[in-house]
Amino acid sequence: MEIKDALQKLEALQKKIYAYTAASSSLYFDGLTAAPSDTAQGRGMALGILAGEQQRLMTSRETGELLHFLSERKEKLPLMQQRQTEMLWRDYQKLLRIPEQEYMEFTMITNEATDIWHKAKEQNDFAMYQPFLEKVVAYLRKFAGYYSPDKKPYDALLNEFERGVDTEFLDSFFAVLRERIVPLLRKIREKEQIDDSFLHKTYPIAAQRRFSDYLMHVMGIDRTHCSITESEHPFTLGFHNKDVRITTNYKENDVSSSMYSVIHEGGHAIYELGVRDELQYTCLSGGASMGIHESQSRFYENIIGRSRAFIHLIFPKMQELFPEQLKDVTADQMYRAVNKVEASLIRTEADELTYCLHIMVRYEIEKQLIGGTMEVGEIPEVWNRLYREYLGVDVPDNRQGCLQDIHWCESFGYFPSYALGNAYGAQMLQNMEKELDVWEKVENGDLSAITGWLRQNVHQHGSFLEPSQIVQLACGDFEPTVYVDYLVKKYTEIYEL
Amino acid sequence: MEIKDALQKLEALQKKIYAYTAASSSLYFDGLTAAPSDTAQGRGMALGILAGEQQRLMTSRETGELLHFLSERKEKLPLMQQRQTEMLWRDYQKLLRIPEQEYMEFTMITNEATDIWHKAKEQNDFAMYQPFLEKVVAYLRKFAGYYSPDKKPYDALLNEFERGVDTEFLDSFFAVLRERIVPLLRKIREKEQIDDSFLHKTYPIAAQRRFSDYLMHVMGIDRTHCSITESEHPFTLGFHNKDVRITTNYKENDVSSSMYSVIHEGGHAIYELGVRDELQYTCLSGGASMGIHESQSRFYENIIGRSRAFIHLIFPKMQELFPEQLKDVTADQMYRAVNKVEASLIRTEADELTYCLHIMVRYEIEKQLIGGTMEVGEIPEVWNRLYREYLGVDVPDNRQGCLQDIHWCESFGYFPSYALGNAYGAQMLQNMEKELDVWEKVENGDLSAITGWLRQNVHQHGSFLEPSQIVQLACGDFEPTVYVDYLVKKYTEIYEL
Repeated sequence: MEIKDALQKLEALQKKIYAYTAASSSLYFDGLTAAPSDTAQGRGMALGILAGEQQRLMTSRETGELLHFLSERKEKLPLMQQRQTEMLWRDYQKLLRIPEQEYMEFTMITNEATDIWHKAKEQNDFAMYQPFLEKVVAYLRKFAGYYSPDKKPYDALLNEFERGVDTEFLDSFFAVLRERIVPLLRKIREKEQIDDSFLHKTYPIAAQRRFSDYLMHVMGIDRTHCSITESEHPFTLGFHNKDVRITTNYKENDVSSSMYSVIHEGGHAIYELGVRDELQYTCLSGGASMGIHESQSRFYENIIGRSRAFIHLIFPKMQELFPEQLKDVTADQMYRAVNKVEASLIRTEADELTYCLHIMVRYEIEKQLIGGTMEVGEIPEVWNRLYREYLGVDVPDNRQGCLQDIHWCESFGYFPSYALGNAYGAQMLQNMEKELDVWEKVENGDLSAITGWLRQNVHQHGSFLEPSQIVQLACGDFEPTVYVDYLVKKYTEIYEL
Repeated sequence: MEIKDALQKLEALQKKIYAYTAASSSLYFDGLTAAPSDTAQGRGMALGILAGEQQRLMTSRETGELLHFLSERKEKLPLMQQRQTEMLWRDYQKLLRIPEQEYMEFTMITNEATDIWHKAKEQNDFAMYQPFLEKVVAYLRKFAGYYSPDKKPYDALLNEFERGVDTEFLDSFFAVLRERIVPLLRKIREKEQIDDSFLHKTYPIAAQRRFSDYLMHVMGIDRTHCSITESEHPFTLGFHNKDVRITTNYKENDVSSSMYSVIHEGGHAIYELGVRDELQYTCLSGGASMGIHESQSRFYENIIGRSRAFIHLIFPKMQELFPEQLKDVTADQMYRAVNKVEASLIRTEADELTYCLHIMVRYEIEKQLIGGTMEVGEIPEVWNRLYREYLGVDVPDNRQGCLQDIHWCESFGYFPSYALGNAYGAQMLQNMEKELDVWEKVENGDLSAITGWLRQNVHQHGSFLEPSQIVQLACGDFEPTVYVDYLVKKYTEIYEL
């Protein structure tokens, strides 16, 4: 085989992988948005078979020989193909360890679990969900051994989302946060509560939909390449850098719920849309890691979206769309309302400050479930106890407790990425501010320089760089105190501590 | 190989085909409903690659050996698997004649053409569409030779939609229609026109959406297995008998447009939902032919949906949903309005009587294009001339002329199925009336016995029977005069001829 032929085969292989991924993504997206309610079984079968076919392609002798050939000649390949070879070879070796039958079964189980989760949440019925979640946990514990045989199971799962991160690292990261946020929170609780009651008037869904359109416009998202629809739980799905979907979920009595979902998912979308063209239809398209992805969504959501400058920018439009609801409200009241600190029940609605406590509850449970020191049946009890311990709240039912998140239907080890993303984002802000007058730009409604900085340092690279290289490029050395300093400064000012 | 093993392989093969079909269907459905506007290219690439993979599966030596093995032992197989083997073996032999590369290219071209068609229609720009349509025609002329090397190209394409039907048969079928409908139409044109102006008041889309829900309810469609969404051109897509989608397109100034789209597509959906369970995930699921499919959609749309009994049934709900618009209208006026005969421009909005003339225009053009006696560039001119000749109308622009239908983006030979479906439907009614008091059932809002009759004689069989066997079972010998008699009787009464 000539290197030239091998490179052509490498391209064809990656286009096939793209096609299978697009097919599964389409079925998945459909299942969460447009599909009739009682249709999961047939879709699950299709997803299972397609996953099996994709795995067969990835693990075929032909693929193995190709990747082996290229790996042996890595130094002779263009940089881009070197990186592709490296990533595919790593995946190939990992997949060889996973039996095809188990892989197909797991895909079908996650699809079934997702379907049941919707019903269980609706009916507040953890027992309905439990047997499916048990299967997911059992499979993931087994899969952890296939992913990284040399790691502890939970570390192996963490590594899938954020390469290099393990429980030791996270235990110390969360310790830093806990040490300074818990006292801050205690002080805030002693202060008078911010009035955010106007956020909970009746906000008609039709006007909220127009608000979403406006927010996407402000964020500079090209709607010919990115749509917004509705689903139970907001999410972003990128087919490639010219086709991204975000979803939101409207609550009539909470205008900020969908607002921050749109900004959050919009941040993910901007990342996907910003990956450079030459990486498309290769294994290097899409984000570098979940932590980096969350750094972008949460940068837009919290650092930009919950800033004074941003609220002042968008408030006139809010008053135009919701004149009755906001007639006696000022931009500054809105700023304080969307930054109200509250020990609450729902992660996706949590404020910026207590958010990491919600993550710590999940981290603790995941660590124990996958570590084998806890049973799925114990989740509600442990969940409720930890919410009491970390946040000081009583969980009234599982719908508002351990049934609130979709993630466990298919993955464990994702949640810590949210917290890491916050920390990365704060460091990116610090570096960005050395080059740009960030807040002047936001106030003037021009986010292009901000998005440009992120595109330059993060988005364009897709998965061409390792997550740690992107962190180095955009953040410098990882230093969680930057994030904690940012939080302390912001909330000390808001609460006049 | 044991027969038992071969049968297991046969089942697995069909499940894989189902998975590939579901994947392509999902991407296709997404492209016409939820996808952002400028995303066709990446989706087209995925569809092309998946089509190639599916063809590779279908034409693999393993598949060939399996089907050959089973074909040789057909008399030893259960009836169901006999039929599966017969159909797959026929497809296998056909596919072997189509080069994989061309097949992939064609799939990508149809996807591109569909995308361009949307833009061209919007911008009334046939020249934009022409080069893509030329490619489709060129490919289909070539493919016709692969489908049935022994047939004339257009006959080969017709045969794909309605096995056994050819130009000779259709020329004489259309001659019968022309002979009696043209004089009838002439008489109707001499009478005073029916006033249907109230159909064209402003009908808010939100209320029309509720009307769609009501219509699907009346038709007995289970919404947990069938959704309705919106697209440029209404269509039905069946993943399997538990997951069917219909779409409609709302026009604010025409309540009957979406109304009859919903009933038409609802008829297709009822067919797909009525195929019996044991045929699912095999090549026998789904309808027997396009003509049979159209017989069901047009049975519900015209024979039921435009009957006096049906209008009397639904009119109170229409008045409830559109009180202002219909306050001075009676059910009988509504009945006459939805049966107004008018030589018009748009096929999908054509009345029951002139509909076949719209089909004849398309039939004539298809026959010549595929026959090679006409160029794509001539379509607008020929289209406009035939509309003048058959319907007596002047086509003001291509948007309302030859750009109105999506079909030619991917297929030729489909249109005649609509006319055949009408004829089948009239014969089904005749037979149904021997067993049921059809109109009493409709008046009482109980369509279950009607759907039950169709399920028994048509739907449940899926593709287990040949189209001609289903026609025999539900219609008896094909006799187009039954259809013409039905039309003459109905319109003689309405127009008091």
